[in-house]
Amino acid sequence: MEVVISQDILKANDTIAERIQANFERTGIFAVNLLGSPGSGKTTLLEQLAKHLSVSLRVAVVEGDLATSKDAERIEKLGWPTVQINTGGGCHLEANMVEKALASLPLNEIDLLFIENVGNLVCTAGHKLGEHLRLVILSCTEGDDKVTKYPPMFQKTNAIVLNKTDLLPFTDFNVEQMEHDARLLNPDVEIMQASSRTGEGVETVAHYLLRKRDCYLAETGH
Amino acid sequence: MEVVISQDILKANDTIAERIQANFERTGIFAVNLLGSPGSGKTTLLEQLAKHLSVSLRVAVVEGDLATSKDAERIEKLGWPTVQINTGGGCHLEANMVEKALASLPLNEIDLLFIENVGNLVCTAGHKLGEHLRLVILSCTEGDDKVTKYPPMFQKTNAIVLNKTDLLPFTDFNVEQMEHDARLLNPDVEIMQASSRTGEGVETVAHYLLRKRDCYLAETGH
Repeated sequence: MEVVISQDILKANDTIAERIQANFERTGIFAVNLLGSPGSGKTTLLEQLAKHLSVSLRVAVVEGDLATSKDAERIEKLGWPTVQINTGGGCHLEANMVEKALASLPLNEIDLLFIENVGNLVCTAGHKLGEHLRLVILSCTEGDDKVTKYPPMFQKTNAIVLNKTDLLPFTDFNVEQMEHDARLLNPDVEIMQASSRTGEGVETVAHYLLRKRDCYLAETGH
Repeated sequence: MEVVISQDILKANDTIAERIQANFERTGIFAVNLLGSPGSGKTTLLEQLAKHLSVSLRVAVVEGDLATSKDAERIEKLGWPTVQINTGGGCHLEANMVEKALASLPLNEIDLLFIENVGNLVCTAGHKLGEHLRLVILSCTEGDDKVTKYPPMFQKTNAIVLNKTDLLPFTDFNVEQMEHDARLLNPDVEIMQASSRTGEGVETVAHYLLRKRDCYLAETGH
């Protein structure tokens, strides 16, 4: 019984996600679902990406959190239109929350939309939000065993950013092991390294997103 | 409808948790629910605590993970009886999983039981597992805003261990701010600092647990 209900809910979520995606494709918005543990550096990475993306693209952000608008306030300082979703205890964003939030954004004036999910390596993996790309931020301080311990997250992502590389020398994180484990689960996954604190490597992430957006525009005939 | 079902499930969970707790109290087991983000250092802290606890107490561990038995293998090396629960994608431990796992442990020969939950700052907060104490491990690399961003976790815990203090000088973590925010949500919360990597501060955590166990034994007439 319980499982049937869950599946129904997931199916309903996917239907809304498809509707959101179709809506994005009408205006040429490329949407990225930004995922990772609490404190993996998602918001700080966005702050760093602004330096590389704001030049050529109109970016907007949907921020998901249990409580507070701290992240949205940080993003607004970048000059990007931002909507904060407070899930009120909910552990992940759902497509219906995103659909409502989008009503507050100028959809005709957005090239790239980041949806920053709640910090969670589990429940967020199961919910599509209309995104074209998933980017998981894994900080090296979390340990190299996270990929095998939280497989759905790493199986379903398009790319992993190994973050906080400025702290790498102070940890026992084995980069090769993590890359090996990730490719075993997900052979096509793109793996990049960055420090959202120093900005090192962030340009590579920005170029990856621009390249993926170009593909998307070509595929959708924009 | 959906909400009613969720409440029923939570109520059923609490009933099992109470049964587990009553069972613990018959034999004088003191149970600790160990919570925190993925990679906050829960298993490493247990490894360090072993040096201080194994002298005087018989310790056992229930390990919760989505997949793999990596953590249980690490704990078994300490000579502590260990059971691994794989939730198969589930984002938190539930009381019925713990109750089944306990059947594999020698309950008459345990003084202190750690239940290491799935790495998650959200869903784990809502599920009682029969524990007498909750200990949240927050690593400084996650940032000082986690307390206000994930309030239920920090509201419902007895204690917080600020972990990875060896990395504190390399972060912008504001310890006073975090402590202030935590006490605003939860005035009685105990806050300790430790580095599960170097072992610094772990003795204080061990003493806190021993003190809390003594109280519990006195209260339950053991």
